[in-house]
Amino acid sequence: MTYCLAIKVDQGLVFASDSRTNAGVDQVSTYSKMHTFEGRGKRAVCILTAGNLATSQAVLRQLRRDNDKGGTRCITSMAELSQVADYIGELSRAEQRKHESANDDFSADASFIVGGQIGKRPPQLFLVYPQGNYISATIQTPYLQIGELKYGKPILDRIVSEDLSLEVAARCALVSMDSTMRSNISVGPPIELLTYTADSGRFNERLTLSEDNAYLLELRRAWQEGLKAAFAGLPSPPALRPPFKLVDTKTD
Amino acid sequence: MTYCLAIKVDQGLVFASDSRTNAGVDQVSTYSKMHTFEGRGKRAVCILTAGNLATSQAVLRQLRRDNDKGGTRCITSMAELSQVADYIGELSRAEQRKHESANDDFSADASFIVGGQIGKRPPQLFLVYPQGNYISATIQTPYLQIGELKYGKPILDRIVSEDLSLEVAARCALVSMDSTMRSNISVGPPIELLTYTADSGRFNERLTLSEDNAYLLELRRAWQEGLKAAFAGLPSPPALRPPFKLVDTKTD
Repeated sequence: MTYCLAIKVDQGLVFASDSRTNAGVDQVSTYSKMHTFEGRGKRAVCILTAGNLATSQAVLRQLRRDNDKGGTRCITSMAELSQVADYIGELSRAEQRKHESANDDFSADASFIVGGQIGKRPPQLFLVYPQGNYISATIQTPYLQIGELKYGKPILDRIVSEDLSLEVAARCALVSMDSTMRSNISVGPPIELLTYTADSGRFNERLTLSEDNAYLLELRRAWQEGLKAAFAGLPSPPALRPPFKLVDTKTD
Repeated sequence: MTYCLAIKVDQGLVFASDSRTNAGVDQVSTYSKMHTFEGRGKRAVCILTAGNLATSQAVLRQLRRDNDKGGTRCITSMAELSQVADYIGELSRAEQRKHESANDDFSADASFIVGGQIGKRPPQLFLVYPQGNYISATIQTPYLQIGELKYGKPILDRIVSEDLSLEVAARCALVSMDSTMRSNISVGPPIELLTYTADSGRFNERLTLSEDNAYLLELRRAWQEGLKAAFAGLPSPPALRPPFKLVDTKTD
C-alpha cells in the first residue's frame, strides 16, 4: 500500500509520500514515490505515485525517456500542467492494457498526483485516476490523496484551507502521514516532504525523514501532547458527569 | 454504511453508534444500531450492529424471541458473554445462508459488537465477524470497531488506554464518531452513546445526540480549537523555516 498527498495553499504546494511498497505482507520494499522535473527556474513538476509499482515505474521511465528526446510531447515543453496530467493518464492506461489479460485477481492499476507550476500560470494539483482521467484540487477541496487515504483524511478536513502558510500545510501533511503510518503497517518510512513556493520556479529542499528522524519524533511527541491537551479541554457529555445517573432501560 | 465502536476501560465500557443506513446514495434511512438487554441489575448486554440491515434485524428479532421464550439459549440466562457472542455468530450465519444464493454482487454480511457484564465476571467486549467467529478486546487493543472504521481509528490509536476514565473514553468515542461523520456522508446522526460502569449491573443513561445537539456542537467547536492549538504548538520542519532554502534538484 501507499499514502501520498498534496496540498495547495496560496503560498504554494506541499507534497508528501511514504516509501513502502508491498506485495503481500512478506514482500516489503522501500521505493521513493516522489519524482520531480524542473527546467531552468521556469517549471517545476512533482509526480507522486500509488498502485502497481511496475506500472508507475514504466510510466516514469517513459516520461524521462520522452524528456531526454525533447520535442513537444515531454514535460519540459508542455505549456500547461493539465497536458502533463493528460499525458500521464495516457501512458498509464497504455501500460495497464499490456498486462490486463494476465488474470482476474491481478490489477495493474496506478494513480498519480501531478502538481507544480509552469511559467506564469498559477500552481496546480491534479489527481490522475487509473482510468487516465483526472481532477484538480479546488478552493473547496485544496488537497488530493492517493493510496491508503482514509486514516489521514479527518485531520486534513479539519485543518486545511488555502490561507494556511506553506509551513503549517507541511506540518499538516506530516501529521496526516504519521496518523496513517500508525494505523496501517503497509504505509511506512521514510517520509518524503517537498514544498514549492509559488512563482519560485524551483522546488525547495526535499526532506527525507526516516523512522527515527529527530524532527519526526519531536513532531509526533508534540502532536500526541497537543491532542491530549485538546481532549482535556473538551466538555463532558451531560449524562456522564459523575455521579452517574442510573436509569432503567428496557428489561427483557 | 455504519460506524460503531466500543471501548473497554478499567472503569467500565463505552458504546457509540451512528444511525444512518443506506442502499445506494438515494436510499438513506435512520435506524438505531444499539440494542440493550438487561436483567435484574445482574446483567447488562449491549449489541451494536453493522452490515446488512435485514440480517442484523433478523438476528435481533430472534434474540428477543428466544429471550421471551426463556430457557438456556437466551441472553438473560447465559453464564458468559462469550456464549452470547457465539450465539449471535450462529444466528447471523444462519440468516446469511438463507440469502446467499441470491446473486454474486449481493452481500448479506453483518458484524456485531457485543459488550457488557454478566454477574461477577469482568466486563468484556467481543467483535463477531460475518463468518460467526469472534475476537475480544484486550489490554493491547482496548477498543473494537465495525463498519466504516478507518477515519476514526487514528484518534483511538493515539488516545485510548485502559486507564482512561469512563468519561474521557466517552469523549474519545464521540470525537472518533464525529471525525468519521465529517469524512463519510454515509455515516450520520443521531449518534447514540451508552456507558456502563463496571460492577453496576445496569447501563447508565443513553444519550442520543442529533446533528444540532448543543453538546455535540460544543464538543466539535472545542475539538476544532484544540486541534488548531495543537498544530500551533508543533515544531516547524527544519528545511521549511523561512527564508526557504532553494536548491537545485535533478534538472531534466
